[in-house]
Amino acid sequence: MNIVATQDLDKATIAARLGHEHVADIVEFLNGKTAEEATELVGHMPLQWAVEVLDQPQFQDACEVIEALPQDKAVALLEGMSADRASDVLRWIEEPSKSRLREALTPETRRGIDHLLTYPDGSAGALMTTEFVSVPSNWTVGQTLAHIREVEHSRETVYAIYVLTPDTKRLVNTVSLRRLIFGAPEAPIGSVANPYAPITVPPTMAQEEVARIISKYDFLAVPVVDSTGHVLGIVTVDDVIDAMIEEQTEDVQRMGGMEAIDAPYLDISFFEMIKKRGGWLCVLFLSEMLTTSAMQVYADELEKAIVLALFIPLVMSSGGNSGSQATSLIIRALALHEVRLRDWWRVALREFPTGLVLGAILGVIGIVRIVVWQEAGIFDYGEHWKLLAVTIGAALVGIVTFGSMAGSLLPFALKRLGFDPASASAPFIATLVDVTGIVIYFSVAWLFLHGTIL
Amino acid sequence: MNIVATQDLDKATIAARLGHEHVADIVEFLNGKTAEEATELVGHMPLQWAVEVLDQPQFQDACEVIEALPQDKAVALLEGMSADRASDVLRWIEEPSKSRLREALTPETRRGIDHLLTYPDGSAGALMTTEFVSVPSNWTVGQTLAHIREVEHSRETVYAIYVLTPDTKRLVNTVSLRRLIFGAPEAPIGSVANPYAPITVPPTMAQEEVARIISKYDFLAVPVVDSTGHVLGIVTVDDVIDAMIEEQTEDVQRMGGMEAIDAPYLDISFFEMIKKRGGWLCVLFLSEMLTTSAMQVYADELEKAIVLALFIPLVMSSGGNSGSQATSLIIRALALHEVRLRDWWRVALREFPTGLVLGAILGVIGIVRIVVWQEAGIFDYGEHWKLLAVTIGAALVGIVTFGSMAGSLLPFALKRLGFDPASASAPFIATLVDVTGIVIYFSVAWLFLHGTIL
Repeated sequence: MNIVATQDLDKATIAARLGHEHVADIVEFLNGKTAEEATELVGHMPLQWAVEVLDQPQFQDACEVIEALPQDKAVALLEGMSADRASDVLRWIEEPSKSRLREALTPETRRGIDHLLTYPDGSAGALMTTEFVSVPSNWTVGQTLAHIREVEHSRETVYAIYVLTPDTKRLVNTVSLRRLIFGAPEAPIGSVANPYAPITVPPTMAQEEVARIISKYDFLAVPVVDSTGHVLGIVTVDDVIDAMIEEQTEDVQRMGGMEAIDAPYLDISFFEMIKKRGGWLCVLFLSEMLTTSAMQVYADELEKAIVLALFIPLVMSSGGNSGSQATSLIIRALALHEVRLRDWWRVALREFPTGLVLGAILGVIGIVRIVVWQEAGIFDYGEHWKLLAVTIGAALVGIVTFGSMAGSLLPFALKRLGFDPASASAPFIATLVDVTGIVIYFSVAWLFLHGTIL
Repeated sequence: MNIVATQDLDKATIAARLGHEHVADIVEFLNGKTAEEATELVGHMPLQWAVEVLDQPQFQDACEVIEALPQDKAVALLEGMSADRASDVLRWIEEPSKSRLREALTPETRRGIDHLLTYPDGSAGALMTTEFVSVPSNWTVGQTLAHIREVEHSRETVYAIYVLTPDTKRLVNTVSLRRLIFGAPEAPIGSVANPYAPITVPPTMAQEEVARIISKYDFLAVPVVDSTGHVLGIVTVDDVIDAMIEEQTEDVQRMGGMEAIDAPYLDISFFEMIKKRGGWLCVLFLSEMLTTSAMQVYADELEKAIVLALFIPLVMSSGGNSGSQATSLIIRALALHEVRLRDWWRVALREFPTGLVLGAILGVIGIVRIVVWQEAGIFDYGEHWKLLAVTIGAALVGIVTFGSMAGSLLPFALKRLGFDPASASAPFIATLVDVTGIVIYFSVAWLFLHGTIL
């Protein structure tokens, strides 16, 4: 993007130059500036450009800009923005600015925004826009086209048209623009409607679920319908993509064992970062303390056979790794509806032999390692090194099997209890498996080494 | 979906009933059947329905169905399918069926498919469809609309129209259908074109990158253009959503420390599952063996101070957890272009103090734990328990800081070397941090406990 450095030009000139760029590029440029600079630049843009910029969910300083601009300008922008985006911006503005701005809006805009604000963040109701095209079912193709031409500029999408009963305004059908331009002008709108019953979502549906429906049916938009069959709004594919990217980031961060952060890495404050990471880190640390407690129980055994301590990190991490593999598999399979809650026993029946085989593979490698090190004279594992090798091998089978089972079943348990399975993050499973792993390890050791070194 | 159980009806009746459903629901129904049943059902459908079903990337048995159907039927289906989907299906069919089917296609279809097959799986070229609408720049709005009505049924999307120079057929502009229906019929097509230069992608671009561009600009499709400015095809938003879901699954599975699997959990064979998980598990196991080697170095110290062993799992896992947090943050920040390669030092400058503070928090908790257990008489850590507490606290600061630094910088290193940063999966980092953690732990212990219990 050929925009010269800010210091060389006054804001009005830069604002004028920005007009030749795609709005997404303008937003990218503004995101690289401070909130104060962005406010000044947006303030210098013609109203229509400024509205377009603020309409982009990618624009990070929207709330700051709206708060910092003179009230009449801010209100004009909110009036011009799409209702879903305007309510999204107002949602995060603090009082008293929020009420002051809300009061200054026209009653019609205010009603629309208030309505959207009643839906919780992350639901279809909060994601939807109320600016869609609907026509009564007794209209013709020609009437509909004329109507679209008239309202096009104020609608987020015109590619899906919703056909309502003329009297009660309930959704009867959907028409795509590509089919509409095909129809004869005098034909009834129903003649070009989609042949299947309209697929709709309730306003309370979670945005990930809406994304799944849009992607399943290859829709450009899906109508949000209340229990009486009235269309409240529509969720468009571009909003869904943004929601998917957000969800993907949350998934990866949760898998990494932390609270999801909703701002770019370099923008989030130091304190916020410590809070988001420190919380989970402390929870994991406190649960991991159980490993110390477990080992204290076996302190006498350790004293007798210090050689057992050497393999603790190796054996434990194998359980954790197999657990996080199983967890990540099941988290995605549940998210994609490849497996359902009632399939838990089928998963368990698969993970049990899988864990046994994987554990056996690692067990053999572990035994080979001990034999080679001992025979080559690299390290002396003591008189009973053969029994030690068998202990390590058997413990690996047990721990990897337990890890696979626990890792695959925890997401089911979390989902059953109403939590997001993705929050069964890998480190959480690793911690669970670590503690149990120590118990398994020393139990196996006692079994094989009792009477010799134990 | 009200489709009665298969055993009660013959396949022809079921196939006929399926016609009243949305194609995505038919696909979901067929995915629940065996490949043989799906083949029989598709074979009984009218050709147009069967083509629609096979055109869905979500249909899992497409290759099996095409291979199992009589050749004339299979060829008719491939001819009717969109070129990108047909080449995708052919891509995975084994020889000699592949060549036999390819030979039977019309020369025009074969050329189109052969062309798409030259692009590697996962690139814009492989994802694109060649069925788009293009018109010469000297046409009018009316001519273009008439053309769209004529070709609509054979185009994947008509919502984006590509304007080419009449002679050299290079891309000059794009027009959206919503703007087109706005224009006066006699106006030149250029009058309704988008005001900015067309945004295009090269055929070699990775599909994640294409997804990022479509989502950034809120496009319904993006043109794939070669170095001479010719449009090779377009990538549509629904293909991008499918690619994003696939990528999300891969990300989560890689974070879970395994090779990404490309089939539903319950469909993949047992052997395949062992292969995908066992490979990484062995790699991690072999690297984790370094922990045993490291501990063997400190075997004498362990012998003298067995109490040190009790805290090894706790201290090590904290390093791993802080490392996987940092890794997951940076993987996403790099994927979303929030940070770039050259920002590595800014990240390092942030992670260093973050690691110190997080480590200090855990260190304090660790010290409190030892003090409480000792004073309450739950466990006796020996005469020098105060020094031991300081050792644990200091080791945690060092290990958490190292974990944060290593976890945040490894994705940069991988990207710099040309690998996908997402493959710096959390368990991999954990393993790296585990080994280093043991060295840090015993070094700190030597520092504080030398001359007392060591």
